[in-house]
Amino acid sequence: MSDIVSPLARPFTAMPPIAGVTLRVARAGYKDWGRCDLTYAELTEGTVVAGVFTRNVCCSSEVEIGRANIAQSQARALVVNAGNSNAFTGYRGREAVEGIMAQVAAHLGCPPEQVFVSSTGVIGVPLPLDKAQAGLGSAFEAAPCDWEEAANTIGTTDTFAKGASATALVGGKTVALAAIIKGSGMIAPDLATMLGYVFTDCAIAPAFLQDLLSTANQTTFNCITVDSDTSTSDTVLAFATGKADNAPLTGFDCPGADAFAAALHDVCRQLAQLVVRDGEGAQKFITVSVSGAVSDDSARKIGLAVANSPLVKTAIAGEDANWGRVVMAVGKAGEPADRDKLSIGFGGVWAAREGQPLADYDEAPMAAHLKGQEISIEIDLGLGEGRATVWTCDLTHDYISINADYRS
Amino acid sequence: MSDIVSPLARPFTAMPPIAGVTLRVARAGYKDWGRCDLTYAELTEGTVVAGVFTRNVCCSSEVEIGRANIAQSQARALVVNAGNSNAFTGYRGREAVEGIMAQVAAHLGCPPEQVFVSSTGVIGVPLPLDKAQAGLGSAFEAAPCDWEEAANTIGTTDTFAKGASATALVGGKTVALAAIIKGSGMIAPDLATMLGYVFTDCAIAPAFLQDLLSTANQTTFNCITVDSDTSTSDTVLAFATGKADNAPLTGFDCPGADAFAAALHDVCRQLAQLVVRDGEGAQKFITVSVSGAVSDDSARKIGLAVANSPLVKTAIAGEDANWGRVVMAVGKAGEPADRDKLSIGFGGVWAAREGQPLADYDEAPMAAHLKGQEISIEIDLGLGEGRATVWTCDLTHDYISINADYRS
Repeated sequence: MSDIVSPLARPFTAMPPIAGVTLRVARAGYKDWGRCDLTYAELTEGTVVAGVFTRNVCCSSEVEIGRANIAQSQARALVVNAGNSNAFTGYRGREAVEGIMAQVAAHLGCPPEQVFVSSTGVIGVPLPLDKAQAGLGSAFEAAPCDWEEAANTIGTTDTFAKGASATALVGGKTVALAAIIKGSGMIAPDLATMLGYVFTDCAIAPAFLQDLLSTANQTTFNCITVDSDTSTSDTVLAFATGKADNAPLTGFDCPGADAFAAALHDVCRQLAQLVVRDGEGAQKFITVSVSGAVSDDSARKIGLAVANSPLVKTAIAGEDANWGRVVMAVGKAGEPADRDKLSIGFGGVWAAREGQPLADYDEAPMAAHLKGQEISIEIDLGLGEGRATVWTCDLTHDYISINADYRS
Repeated sequence: MSDIVSPLARPFTAMPPIAGVTLRVARAGYKDWGRCDLTYAELTEGTVVAGVFTRNVCCSSEVEIGRANIAQSQARALVVNAGNSNAFTGYRGREAVEGIMAQVAAHLGCPPEQVFVSSTGVIGVPLPLDKAQAGLGSAFEAAPCDWEEAANTIGTTDTFAKGASATALVGGKTVALAAIIKGSGMIAPDLATMLGYVFTDCAIAPAFLQDLLSTANQTTFNCITVDSDTSTSDTVLAFATGKADNAPLTGFDCPGADAFAAALHDVCRQLAQLVVRDGEGAQKFITVSVSGAVSDDSARKIGLAVANSPLVKTAIAGEDANWGRVVMAVGKAGEPADRDKLSIGFGGVWAAREGQPLADYDEAPMAAHLKGQEISIEIDLGLGEGRATVWTCDLTHDYISINADYRS
């Protein structure tokens, strides 16, 4: 974790314990940073798991193995290594992941495929298995910790701990969700996400949990971007311990399924927005609202083209209502758009309607809006009913400073 | 033109006059910058024209009209306005372009569709026709100027004048090419280019000139990127006056066609690289060489994914051989790649071969290479015969500074 906290940071929210989940952290010493860097979550027998993973084809062994093991739906443990992503490390990287899985499986007496491993940090350095195993040994002996300590431990360039929680009434039982996430740079959408973990005591069929997670992912994690760069290690896992004793959810016809789906979506959206709030160098949180597109998917792609445009992001950093750059970004998105039907606004004030600048709009409220921390950009295509909301941050000098000397 | 010249600048090359082309500049006063901002090139009767234009769907009226008028193949004049792109200005913008065309057509006694207009600068402000017409009136009276003055006059955030020239022996006659270009930010490939103009005295059929220009464009202008943002006004036009008196080129079976095509490609490549050398905030010129892809097109897309990655560009700015970020960018390109066949190098030294870091490579020559101004990144996919070379620059604090307060 960095010493300088993002100006967009949010205090860590009070989060309930989740029955069946025990968190512990330890120092494996992957980097010389004098803090815990290994997180170990033990999950009760019968916990089911769902997941979404990066579509970066140069993905890590952790992602490859995790994606394969999601199929058997059962999870007994999660191990997260911070400081080394173990990506692009060939058979040595794979051996390290398998070594961690074997050690935890022996400790718990479970099959190794029920142990899920994530790693985050520099690419191309094999994860040192000796450090991982010593760290795990310490974690097994450690006292349980709270969500905030776990959220801090999974972080790398993150500047604050990020978590979210929710509850839902399911068949007369209150189920709880608690979730943590890390991510700050190398954050891009369309492919997948970052390292995020949702825990719930809800009893739910794994296939339904996977459906709900995949659906929520589309309008939450897949609608954020910090820098258009998609990590090799992105993973979101949802673990359900079943300890809430509700009648198991198997589909939307079950009582409480809608409430649980809404709670899961809410937690995912909170996590996704927290990642943007910790975007490297971020000074402003930007909401891009697209309407009038030919489809929701087209709206999302246009929103992301705007949110990924360095010229739009630097204009916001400069508090400049340079809506011409928004026009440019809409036009390069590769999606249907008609220049002469396009409208652009900032903070709820239209600067251009239907392809022409408004000669007489009042710049004062727009200028005041741009001086704030929470910026909104409105885009109406005037073509159809497609809508999307995308979140990003501005592009500042600090992004350059953070990334021009990250590894060294 | 900026006061601070890019450290990657090249001196303006000595360029020959082209028979049938007369250049003049004037002050239209589109911005308060006390310099010439209107360029007027008069072309002899019988000049043929070919062009490539931005694929940004929010393109300017200049692009729309120019694209339509390329079909009739004849050109008598080029007018370039600097300081206002006239993009996204609706019917008022279109009227300004038509007004300029009418004025020049009356002056030369030619059809208005033989007058090509480009504008570059801020988006969303209608080009003031009164200023344009007064400027044109001055230009008609002005003494002819040289290539360097014209190259300076078409620039906006450019920090140095950019031109290139070549000759080719065509059927016993020496034909000359001279070309100028502007561009520094909002430069991205795949769609089209920036404002570039090639002039030649070669006699050539317009359809063949268009073929050669479109082909050259694919491996030159479409292989550069500064910031992944594609302008609404990008245009490259090639004008051939026919004054070299060579037997007209109509296809590759004509003597000298290969030589002319090579000279045209060479000029386009020089111009494209000069734009990268003037990339906003650029400190380093980066050549990304991709081999072993499944096709040349796939190689180009992978090269551009690397060249557009802010994390790769900031790593180069930081002189950090962070090849893991190159792996990430290859993996997110959406093109066929196999992590375990992928090799990455800097400055001709492999850091990783076939999916694994080389444990014993000598970092010293690579570190020395990264301290230089001319950086090369080598990527071998190990899949096929596809190759491409892409050029870009690093991403520095100056890019942020330039773009966070450009408009204001």
